[in-house]
Amino acid sequence: MIRKAKTSLQLRRVGIDTYKENVAYLHRDCQVYRSEGFQALSKIEISDEAGGRSILAALNVVDDASITAPGQLGLSLETFQQLGLPEGAAATVAHAKPPTSLDAVHRKIAGERLEYADYEAITRDIVEHRYAKIEMAAFLVACSETGMEREEVLHLTRAMAGSGEQLDWHEPLVADKHCIGGIPGNRTSMLVVPIVAAHGMFIPKTSSRAITSPAGTADTMEVLARVELPPDQLNDIVRTQRGCLAWGGTALLAPVDDILISVERPLSLDSPSQMVASILAKKLAAGATHLLIDIPMGPTAKVRSQADALRLRKLFEFVGDRIGLQLEVIITDGRQPIGRGIGPVLEARDVMQVLENDPKQPRDLREKALQLASRILEFDPDVRGGQGYTLARDILESGRALDKLRAIIAAQGASDIPREVGRLCNTVNAERNGSVATIDNQQMARIARLAGAPMDKGAGVDLYKKVGDKVRRDEPLYAIHAEFGADFAFACEAATQNSGFTLS
Amino acid sequence: MIRKAKTSLQLRRVGIDTYKENVAYLHRDCQVYRSEGFQALSKIEISDEAGGRSILAALNVVDDASITAPGQLGLSLETFQQLGLPEGAAATVAHAKPPTSLDAVHRKIAGERLEYADYEAITRDIVEHRYAKIEMAAFLVACSETGMEREEVLHLTRAMAGSGEQLDWHEPLVADKHCIGGIPGNRTSMLVVPIVAAHGMFIPKTSSRAITSPAGTADTMEVLARVELPPDQLNDIVRTQRGCLAWGGTALLAPVDDILISVERPLSLDSPSQMVASILAKKLAAGATHLLIDIPMGPTAKVRSQADALRLRKLFEFVGDRIGLQLEVIITDGRQPIGRGIGPVLEARDVMQVLENDPKQPRDLREKALQLASRILEFDPDVRGGQGYTLARDILESGRALDKLRAIIAAQGASDIPREVGRLCNTVNAERNGSVATIDNQQMARIARLAGAPMDKGAGVDLYKKVGDKVRRDEPLYAIHAEFGADFAFACEAATQNSGFTLS
Repeated sequence: MIRKAKTSLQLRRVGIDTYKENVAYLHRDCQVYRSEGFQALSKIEISDEAGGRSILAALNVVDDASITAPGQLGLSLETFQQLGLPEGAAATVAHAKPPTSLDAVHRKIAGERLEYADYEAITRDIVEHRYAKIEMAAFLVACSETGMEREEVLHLTRAMAGSGEQLDWHEPLVADKHCIGGIPGNRTSMLVVPIVAAHGMFIPKTSSRAITSPAGTADTMEVLARVELPPDQLNDIVRTQRGCLAWGGTALLAPVDDILISVERPLSLDSPSQMVASILAKKLAAGATHLLIDIPMGPTAKVRSQADALRLRKLFEFVGDRIGLQLEVIITDGRQPIGRGIGPVLEARDVMQVLENDPKQPRDLREKALQLASRILEFDPDVRGGQGYTLARDILESGRALDKLRAIIAAQGASDIPREVGRLCNTVNAERNGSVATIDNQQMARIARLAGAPMDKGAGVDLYKKVGDKVRRDEPLYAIHAEFGADFAFACEAATQNSGFTLS
Repeated sequence: MIRKAKTSLQLRRVGIDTYKENVAYLHRDCQVYRSEGFQALSKIEISDEAGGRSILAALNVVDDASITAPGQLGLSLETFQQLGLPEGAAATVAHAKPPTSLDAVHRKIAGERLEYADYEAITRDIVEHRYAKIEMAAFLVACSETGMEREEVLHLTRAMAGSGEQLDWHEPLVADKHCIGGIPGNRTSMLVVPIVAAHGMFIPKTSSRAITSPAGTADTMEVLARVELPPDQLNDIVRTQRGCLAWGGTALLAPVDDILISVERPLSLDSPSQMVASILAKKLAAGATHLLIDIPMGPTAKVRSQADALRLRKLFEFVGDRIGLQLEVIITDGRQPIGRGIGPVLEARDVMQVLENDPKQPRDLREKALQLASRILEFDPDVRGGQGYTLARDILESGRALDKLRAIIAAQGASDIPREVGRLCNTVNAERNGSVATIDNQQMARIARLAGAPMDKGAGVDLYKKVGDKVRRDEPLYAIHAEFGADFAFACEAATQNSGFTLS
């Protein structure tokens, strides 16, 4: 229903961040609101006087003239920026037609298979902020679980990768790795990147901060080096060092992914189809040519059975092959956390111990990093099949990996964050003699987050025992570190209710 | 993840109407926002100091201290009212746990069948404003189309009916009717209610205003009488007159329905399951014992095939029988608009012509109203099977129905709205000789809305020809009436592009 407002309104910037959703504000007594029969939350189209530009926004009604007065059109921060007109400029509003690609979403809800053109239209409309959050939720749920055929995952991946910029490094081999997540302490990237880059392979790795976990690679790397770097500087570092360990800067790559994640995350939607499309679209847009995917499997991991892991692997392979990525999938042991530390400072300590060949190093973290690095090294045509592991171990044991990480740290700029663990500390002890049967990834992550990780760098959990270790009664299983009393109390209480460990 | 804020905040009422979604505002520099690691749009739990009351809200981040300053917690109008504390009162915020019933929503997304307890938990959480809009969208899409078994529709209906107040009229027979909608001009309630009430049957009919159509029964009745009445007065009128034609007042009945509709409508979700649960829950809560459902069928109606109509009828019958409603379903001719007028004043004219036995009356509206009324009259055990139609016709032709409507109008209070059609008028004429083959319900509704209906009471479309009528070239097919020039131009332009008529 198109119905143009006859009156123009004065634009006003309203200091509210509506986070990836466009919101406009009209006063309840505004002539345009009353005469147009708008309803709160209806979607409106906002145009400049010349009609050259227009954006869509959800409408909020305001009773307070100091926020938006009658005759004004308030726009939230991101919305105001998108329209790109100055405050006070004249704009008109009209009932917005729903984006045309919503037809395809309705066909998907009805169980139809969509074509590439449908996914392309949907992702374009989303990137252009034409979808409300509830429309994105409808799309994601319709695609969720068994709702997508693998050809559709391919279509969605291509459409997402094409939704923004695509990097071209002008290198014959651009390596990358990605873990689907869910395992605390799993900081392999900080070992794999130095090993692979020390060999001379090109691995411009950008990492994320923690969203729901106690630390992302960017959070942990930040203990050692600056991770937020301007694109030009990052580019220079990668060219010189053949690798980097920096934070994101990927907002322009497959931008539709970031928008969809803003709905997927609060909904806890995490279907294999969306995971594969999201990961591969970002990697494709980032210019990767060779990619190693790590799927940890275990009873408290994201993937809980061999059948599920295999299905996910096949889906990665199917899509990867068709978008021209040289892709390997490795299914790893996800039964318990990797390494000892959970939380930025504790994890950085583990990483440095491995690089320094410290006898106290966590062997599982070292082994896993070597496994992953060996697979990436074998992407190199000059590395003989089966020799990757020896090569990776040589690079690590010779100290070349440590030198490479130090060089990357120096290039990115050393961190001034103190590497101290949280000053409050409590151990959780075994209730009886036995051996550790299981460690719950999710509960350990929860305790570490309650303790303050990743915001408080030194907070987290330090594991003294791993699965298979023998323990005596009252012997410490792990320590909780925190900076603040309230956090410490919450974390200790959670550990008392459920330690995360079972003994046999 | 539960993590309590250590600091209390001062409550502030923010004059923004966020329409059935709870929204809270924190300043970007607020200590609590920074230390808690909240993210924009994350859901937070707001509690009073004593911890006795708590509500959930989505978080918006504010950069303007005049909206919400650091140290303050802003709440949108509805949210502030829900919490029920004065401005300046102390409150604490914490990361909110997702409502527990979201587990059931995820099971539904995964294709599982849900039990009554699940639907009950979901509707309770929604009524208590614990769901974000995207969570409701996820629930609705998961249930949409073929996603619900009929036992589940029954569970959902019961849960929705139980989500608010339930009326008991202390009458042995409380009649009601409901049309699933989609046919312009279909104002049968304004004829059926007077006929049925004149017979002495109890029919406390409340109606809705137009949402996406050019007029709802409440909009059209408003041309004749006041329709917004206090509950007590409405109750007295129904007791005295045995019937009424008033607006809603049903916000307390199956309130979850109104909340879900606020998401269904912008998403254009209209699955049979949701339609049946929504209609029957409202009627059950309104105390109906006998219900007639009208399903218009036709190529531009909501239901487009006999198979779909039958499937919908069976679903109504299955649920109706199990919730103890005496329910009849009638599948009617939905190939074209009913009557001549489309828009409040024009439709009120049609209704009065039928009641006044005016020779110019639209015969199809009269026939349909008699059919529906006859089925309701036969709910009366004293009316012999097959005699309903004769009885209805007698009541109509004798003027008793007209007297009853006049009595209802007098009781509700006569309207002071002028019964004039829009002053701007244009006819749309036949392009050649022929006979009318089809009239598109949706296009006629669209033209009438563009012309200003239902806001401008006199705006709309007046049909001169119906399907089967012979027309000569340049003979008028219908007139467009409007009050305002811009509306008039839009409506005429839409009719030029697509008149809605095809000739054979």
